[in-house]
Amino acid sequence: MNTAGVHIIAELSDCDFSRLSDAVRVEDACKQAALHSGATVLSVNRHRFSPVGVSILVFLAESHLSVHTWPEEGYAAVDVYTCGFSTRPHKAITFLARFLKANNIHLRCLSRGKKISDREYESEEFVLEGAKLSQARAFDADAHVDFSVGRIG
Amino acid sequence: MNTAGVHIIAELSDCDFSRLSDAVRVEDACKQAALHSGATVLSVNRHRFSPVGVSILVFLAESHLSVHTWPEEGYAAVDVYTCGFSTRPHKAITFLARFLKANNIHLRCLSRGKKISDREYESEEFVLEGAKLSQARAFDADAHVDFSVGRIG
Repeated sequence: MNTAGVHIIAELSDCDFSRLSDAVRVEDACKQAALHSGATVLSVNRHRFSPVGVSILVFLAESHLSVHTWPEEGYAAVDVYTCGFSTRPHKAITFLARFLKANNIHLRCLSRGKKISDREYESEEFVLEGAKLSQARAFDADAHVDFSVGRIG
Repeated sequence: MNTAGVHIIAELSDCDFSRLSDAVRVEDACKQAALHSGATVLSVNRHRFSPVGVSILVFLAESHLSVHTWPEEGYAAVDVYTCGFSTRPHKAITFLARFLKANNIHLRCLSRGKKISDREYESEEFVLEGAKLSQARAFDADAHVDFSVGRIG
């Protein structure tokens, strides 16, 4: 089985407090986000922090999706890692950014996979400053990460 | 609570087949790795793949640790993300690299946290080619990632 994949590391800032705080809705959004990316959800696990904050870890057949929220800071740390060629992980990020109403989105897309001779690991960076949902849609449409290992956009 | 943290993305190649295949031992190694980094384990979840392969997701009070293995390729994808200032996530990576007997180690260390005005997100890269355990120990001793957000080495 091919080990190649893409891992997107997302910082979502200026998000909606109530959505960041709602563990059940964040969990549901994670499942939907995974499905939007074309991934297969194996199981979902959740932790609530006191007084606020949620962590969600999703097992995917293609690897994992995670969300950690700091409602008091309006921030969520998100990562989506999918191996193989059949998923579009940026669609999961876009879905979660919309759900959390993120106004600032910083993304790093990293190639993953086993070392093959002089293989270079690639990365691509996207920033949406003061992002509105329309810009998130623009990211959705324009994003392009190939890396010869996984299609993103 | 401070959102700043460090996320280490590790490609471990030329690993030991039997260790990559042993779900129980990989899970135990993940717990020990987390403890070595100074993190607090909240819970651990495991999936086995057919015919071989293991995924482990560990909830940490400080975020998460994940391992996905491809025994047939001698490869493990590892990431350790810890927020705050009290952990040393590279120690978890070094522990897992030793456990899996990785001979090639490629690491990317990324700063994480919410967007603050013109904040730059930093990264640092380490490669240990044909790494022996002695080199893993060298990484352990020499690694230095500060990012002003989390001490690593």
